[in-house]
Amino acid sequence: MPVTGFEQFEVGQKFTSAPRAVTTADIKQFAAQFDFQPQHMDETAAKATLFGSLVASGWHTASLTMRLMLESILEGVSGRGLGIRINDITWSSPVRPDDELHAVSEVMSLRPSRSKPDRGLAVIRTTTHNQRGEAVQEMTGTLLILRSDALLHLGN
Amino acid sequence: MPVTGFEQFEVGQKFTSAPRAVTTADIKQFAAQFDFQPQHMDETAAKATLFGSLVASGWHTASLTMRLMLESILEGVSGRGLGIRINDITWSSPVRPDDELHAVSEVMSLRPSRSKPDRGLAVIRTTTHNQRGEAVQEMTGTLLILRSDALLHLGN
Repeated sequence: MPVTGFEQFEVGQKFTSAPRAVTTADIKQFAAQFDFQPQHMDETAAKATLFGSLVASGWHTASLTMRLMLESILEGVSGRGLGIRINDITWSSPVRPDDELHAVSEVMSLRPSRSKPDRGLAVIRTTTHNQRGEAVQEMTGTLLILRSDALLHLGN
Repeated sequence: MPVTGFEQFEVGQKFTSAPRAVTTADIKQFAAQFDFQPQHMDETAAKATLFGSLVASGWHTASLTMRLMLESILEGVSGRGLGIRINDITWSSPVRPDDELHAVSEVMSLRPSRSKPDRGLAVIRTTTHNQRGEAVQEMTGTLLILRSDALLHLGN
């Protein structure tokens, strides 16, 4: 059962997502919109880049990781949290066509808000792995998350 | 004229992109793929979230900022650099439908590689602003960038 509020998280909890494949078409489509460098756009042009072959944009990997988190650690708090800050992102290995990615998130620290008792801050470390178990991205972020019993008013 | 290699960057240089609009359709399309929370997906559902109205995913803002950087500071080094690390991202204000975003990037530090003389590391701070001059995102990243005269071999 998903965690539905800040008070249900515990330091050290780990959440693992199901895997999700990244296709050549996905890589090129994302790149055409946001990161149209040759290593993300075209197999031949990619040969003359630092990567030597087609790879996903790091921002594609980061965006996919958000999806994987919504399918695991954040499933129950969708719409009841917000990202305050990304503390760091490292792209450890390239993501190549047909890689299957999954995310493992760990709760690193929790701090209830002093001024607003219906919410708290969670520091979450998420490593995104490919099908060979290699880390492709390591990220630490700080999220504001509401308690399960928090009431949101329309137009809050 | 765009900067085409590591040796042409100088600490303190600033680059400003042209503005680019973010539509309601853009926000929902990105969210459907990567961040399907109610505040990014639907005007009515967004009223019952912490934001109170439709806002872009922070990952959408980050990805758009990559595009704005490729249209300014990174224009001449497309395909000849790679993101090593994001040192931090802060989402300072929400991005709402029809906002027009532009990015201002500043070169914070430069370090030539000791082992590979054809490249170096640049720390770049980029603030993404809306049409009211408000910062919507502040980000610092570390990029590896080749010198203008670097030779890349096929399959490098």
